[in-house]
Amino acid sequence: MGSTFGHLFRITTFGESHGGGVGVVIDGCPPQLPITAEEIQVELDRRRPGQSKITTPRKEADQCEILSGVFQGKTLGTSLTILVRNKDTRPQDYSEMATTYRPSHADATYDAKYGIRNWQGGGRSSARETIGRVAAGAIAKKILQQIAGVEVVGYVKRIKHLEGNIDPETVMLEQVESNIVRCPDAEAADRMIDLIEQVRDQGDSIGGVVECVARQVPKGLGEPVFDKLEADLAKGMMSLPATKGFELGSGFAGTLLTGSEHNDAFYTDEQGNIRTKTNRSGGTQGGISNGENILIRVAFKPTATIRKAQETVTSEGEAAILAAKGRHDPCVLPRAVPMVEAMMALVLCDHLMRHHGQCELL
Amino acid sequence: MGSTFGHLFRITTFGESHGGGVGVVIDGCPPQLPITAEEIQVELDRRRPGQSKITTPRKEADQCEILSGVFQGKTLGTSLTILVRNKDTRPQDYSEMATTYRPSHADATYDAKYGIRNWQGGGRSSARETIGRVAAGAIAKKILQQIAGVEVVGYVKRIKHLEGNIDPETVMLEQVESNIVRCPDAEAADRMIDLIEQVRDQGDSIGGVVECVARQVPKGLGEPVFDKLEADLAKGMMSLPATKGFELGSGFAGTLLTGSEHNDAFYTDEQGNIRTKTNRSGGTQGGISNGENILIRVAFKPTATIRKAQETVTSEGEAAILAAKGRHDPCVLPRAVPMVEAMMALVLCDHLMRHHGQCELL
Amino acid sequence: MGSTFGHLFRITTFGESHGGGVGVVIDGCPPQLPITAEEIQVELDRRRPGQSKITTPRKEADQCEILSGVFQGKTLGTSLTILVRNKDTRPQDYSEMATTYRPSHADATYDAKYGIRNWQGGGRSSARETIGRVAAGAIAKKILQQIAGVEVVGYVKRIKHLEGNIDPETVMLEQVESNIVRCPDAEAADRMIDLIEQVRDQGDSIGGVVECVARQVPKGLGEPVFDKLEADLAKGMMSLPATKGFELGSGFAGTLLTGSEHNDAFYTDEQGNIRTKTNRSGGTQGGISNGENILIRVAFKPTATIRKAQETVTSEGEAAILAAKGRHDPCVLPRAVPMVEAMMALVLCDHLMRHHGQCELL
Amino acid sequence: MGSTFGHLFRITTFGESHGGGVGVVIDGCPPQLPITAEEIQVELDRRRPGQSKITTPRKEADQCEILSGVFQGKTLGTSLTILVRNKDTRPQDYSEMATTYRPSHADATYDAKYGIRNWQGGGRSSARETIGRVAAGAIAKKILQQIAGVEVVGYVKRIKHLEGNIDPETVMLEQVESNIVRCPDAEAADRMIDLIEQVRDQGDSIGGVVECVARQVPKGLGEPVFDKLEADLAKGMMSLPATKGFELGSGFAGTLLTGSEHNDAFYTDEQGNIRTKTNRSGGTQGGISNGENILIRVAFKPTATIRKAQETVTSEGEAAILAAKGRHDPCVLPRAVPMVEAMMALVLCDHLMRHHGQCELL
Repeated sequence: MGSTFGHLFRITTFGESHGGGVGVVIDGCPPQLPITAEEIQVELDRRRPGQSKITTPRKEADQCEILSGVFQGKTLGTSLTILVRNKDTRPQDYSEMATTYRPSHADATYDAKYGIRNWQGGGRSSARETIGRVAAGAIAKKILQQIAGVEVVGYVKRIKHLEGNIDPETVMLEQVESNIVRCPDAEAADRMIDLIEQVRDQGDSIGGVVECVARQVPKGLGEPVFDKLEADLAKGMMSLPATKGFELGSGFAGTLLTGSEHNDAFYTDEQGNIRTKTNRSGGTQGGISNGENILIRVAFKPTATIRKAQETVTSEGEAAILAAKGRHDPCVLPRAVPMVEAMMALVLCDHLMRHHGQCELL
Repeated sequence: MGSTFGHLFRITTFGESHGGGVGVVIDGCPPQLPITAEEIQVELDRRRPGQSKITTPRKEADQCEILSGVFQGKTLGTSLTILVRNKDTRPQDYSEMATTYRPSHADATYDAKYGIRNWQGGGRSSARETIGRVAAGAIAKKILQQIAGVEVVGYVKRIKHLEGNIDPETVMLEQVESNIVRCPDAEAADRMIDLIEQVRDQGDSIGGVVECVARQVPKGLGEPVFDKLEADLAKGMMSLPATKGFELGSGFAGTLLTGSEHNDAFYTDEQGNIRTKTNRSGGTQGGISNGENILIRVAFKPTATIRKAQETVTSEGEAAILAAKGRHDPCVLPRAVPMVEAMMALVLCDHLMRHHGQCELL
Repeated sequence: MGSTFGHLFRITTFGESHGGGVGVVIDGCPPQLPITAEEIQVELDRRRPGQSKITTPRKEADQCEILSGVFQGKTLGTSLTILVRNKDTRPQDYSEMATTYRPSHADATYDAKYGIRNWQGGGRSSARETIGRVAAGAIAKKILQQIAGVEVVGYVKRIKHLEGNIDPETVMLEQVESNIVRCPDAEAADRMIDLIEQVRDQGDSIGGVVECVARQVPKGLGEPVFDKLEADLAKGMMSLPATKGFELGSGFAGTLLTGSEHNDAFYTDEQGNIRTKTNRSGGTQGGISNGENILIRVAFKPTATIRKAQETVTSEGEAAILAAKGRHDPCVLPRAVPMVEAMMALVLCDHLMRHHGQCELL
Repeated sequence: MGSTFGHLFRITTFGESHGGGVGVVIDGCPPQLPITAEEIQVELDRRRPGQSKITTPRKEADQCEILSGVFQGKTLGTSLTILVRNKDTRPQDYSEMATTYRPSHADATYDAKYGIRNWQGGGRSSARETIGRVAAGAIAKKILQQIAGVEVVGYVKRIKHLEGNIDPETVMLEQVESNIVRCPDAEAADRMIDLIEQVRDQGDSIGGVVECVARQVPKGLGEPVFDKLEADLAKGMMSLPATKGFELGSGFAGTLLTGSEHNDAFYTDEQGNIRTKTNRSGGTQGGISNGENILIRVAFKPTATIRKAQETVTSEGEAAILAAKGRHDPCVLPRAVPMVEAMMALVLCDHLMRHHGQCELL
């Protein structure tokens, strides 16, 4: 289990890094939405390996095929299937993994859980699995944009200790895409790129923080108790590979304020809309969107696969030294941006539909 | 929707702060587990209001009744129902809330979503809803303890800037319960209590961080892709009222390390178990437990309800000033500890059963 | 598990025949629907024991209390909880069941599954569990009626071999309620009542068929593949106690026709609506409602509990003779009518909301 | 939605008759189960078109590819993906369907629901969708067989009025497969084949009843209330194309008996097992398997697509005459047998795992 996400807009990703391919089944998509493989490809290209000098050199075109669910350029309302064939697999790069556990990877836990493991890559734990999420996210974004003009923009907020100065109110996709590290603060981006290259050359890796904003989100999305918007966002983000933390609005730093400092005062704007003067809440109150920007941050650990020699054990428990030979990212963050955006869009789209089904019925 | 949590061990909480009562239906509980109302009451007493000078003076005995599912002291395997009647409701304390939105509360978003709201308290957004979670968590804890000796211990790690020095490897429930703020560092606890009282006297509130550890968790719990253990923990925690952030293991601070610093080296211990020398992973790799301690942190914002005057608007959008008269906690952390433990136990118990159903079948 | 039904309009029933009470949590109900305990009570009174000379003499007022979810006469949009306390329990009537299995009852299977059983009644297998369904069904009916004028009418079609002559196109609730057996063919009803009394006096029991029609159902409800309208109806009906079969439209008899005889020819009516001349399909094609009447039939076996002596075994496997002393229905059909209607309404209401959420969004 | 079935053993079918292919994602499969594409192909071959003179002449090899989830001949525990490419599509055969509704088909309801339809075949309503079910069913059967020696055998019980005489206690797969109509009563099979050919030559179609038995099913499978074994079986069967009715055990005919005639008397067999002397219950009591044979029957209507001219309308509502030119089955029953078996196996396997996860934990 665990391959399905969402309630009304429901996706099931499939496939492994070293089998016949990966993809996604999208069930519950509204009908008559114009969509093309090219639109989906745009997002996949932001995610694919080999896109720049600071990502893994593994070359995958990640070309998507829409197997079903679209007819004459429009969604049918029935499920879509999107398939991406695997191309550049080199199982021989992984032969050492057949017996030796990569530290902080899923090798040992998959063996512990299942007693068997596809050591020719990471199986379902491979980041290739996120292709399905990003493809589905492209469709979710389009629905959100068409229904309510929702904009979802993610970007690299921090690489290790290097933090960008970015205004979530105004940041645009074009700025994010203007450099290869996807940090819309150009000056910080340069330093980040330098640091990533330096770390890569040392055979090491680094992590950081992706921030993501959703603007123009209608009021009322999210549900009380367990399906609060931030709860579903947290699950979505913490299900991405390499994540260690999630924050909404003021996040952990908000715990340093008093209530009178932290509360978002209400006011009525010129159009008569009830708004908040600040947005420490991060766009939800009681788990339900309040019309302000949804603002979240996700911590990504440094890539576990590194060239530096590490102490580990074999699957038999024998001590061993491992120095990875496979091709890998020295820093996952530039490629993580479209993944975070996808999960944001998937959660919002699902809740938009749930809200419409329940609260806009009578 | 949104009132149900869990897949095999599945709970549905019900009720509101100012109606006939609150409680929980627990479906999927293993049969023949000895359980008494008294055992559940122990946990509810840790959560209930009026338990100390630093919590809300609202007096609720929160006495639980097991309506169904237990026979001659043992679970039947069929669903349990646990009911707690509401007693000390003073709707008049809330009359101002009929028209005036409390900043950073769910009043405005519930109105936006539903066009109607029970202003005699917070309805389903009330923290009283968590009674059902804590009651169910008591049963989940007992199952975990009986099956695998799992220990779940939560505690206050930080109140505002005051941080306790606590070793998650060894901390015991008795230490947590040894003071009213539930911080097992006695010296820090004293300062925390002083700060809470000081802030309360100013009509203000503060927040902080709860840390929770689960020890002796079997290897193999959690599922690939969307139902990673940390994803379900994040959802569970971020569905608690007043939460703003979630971390596993190294969390956000882990992003400041390099991969070679962050990775947990494997070794084989004297019993022949494959272990990790460090636990920056926080007990999971690839979303699946690795036998090390599950270690998480949850950020709780300062209580939104404060006595200090605040700018707000009425439901008609007119500017207003609000100074809360209701009884409330100046700091939710001491009472949040059993809630966090409950969510940890619920997630682990569900995944223990899921793992057993799938991977220990053949 | 197994206590929850529905996807957007989702109910969780709770309680046992001989514990503190039974009821239901209804999650996902549209907000602002006017509803009173009295309206729910009307349906519960159609279901309750002791309502006539041909039902069990067990006296239960089955008075419902709305614990949460309704404020000033309207639904809040958050979950409703409805509780019915048990009153007339006589555990001593069941003492023999502690050790002796009632044939064709759930005693032996519950013991086999769980290794424990509440022998003071049937536990969750008791027909009292259906109180929650009927209460929730009352609300679903009201939603269906308000949104689209949907009418759901169930009735006894056959008792043993005695079949009523009823036109599903026109039959009205008043006709159903005009006699105690709930067969709107008055002449057949008299014979049915006679037969039930005769069988009861012999210490035996009988079964039959309930038919249920839903009129004015909008086109488009139901989903392809697994959640076809008839699939969810079949699940709902076959989850009722004592059911042995389910049919839609022509049902089993339809297999005796050829395709040219069975197909429903399309035509366009005077209002320009595409209709079918016949309705052998029973109101769905490809699992989706076509605007014609949804017509189903459900087979209920003769009540398993009878006064006549029967061969059985004890839980230890010793041969035994059992002659039931508890109070029971000689024929469940009159009381099954509101249960069937409730399940029909629950399925339609859930699919109405799902359809609205997906297909009426763009 | 609607493309996913099962709770622990969960399948998601995908694809359309006239797109890139069809298949299934199987999530929750136990690890280390030996499985090959050849084993799955055996079942697909029983389902595929063109297999005999009484099925559609459409030629599809329906060759399956295992895209993921199997490594070195064994299941990985993570999800399996099975893909079957479409080959013999002739969209031109369907050009008339672009505008003209086929009576008793899903054309009109899909248009009503979605406002769009893939008229080059039936889209998701095509019986090709069941390829995914049959492939997944092959794996479910193997699990059931390995864990508990469960045998699932389906067969044609009746074609129109021609009924076979078959003993569900002893019937074997070899007998079912010994003739092209899959009726293990050889004499009846001959008459059935004659009738199908005769009806086909008239441009018409016929239906019938498939019976399916599961033997050696462990006691205790199924759950109280909504997830009774027969409820999930009913849903599974009624989600198959062309089904109109479902029965368990005595079924509709059981309603003609009295309770004393219908009840299954208990006895203890020589091995000390508690058994029932008869099996009118059909293998479940209270929704839970009792160790007797699970016995169900499913009514399949006559194929809707016929060559005979029929009255219908266009999508614009204009009257039209339709005489199908596509290739189709004059009787779906022979190919429906593996579909019914698949759904039986999927439901049992899911409940076997659920039962193990909950009731065999402590």
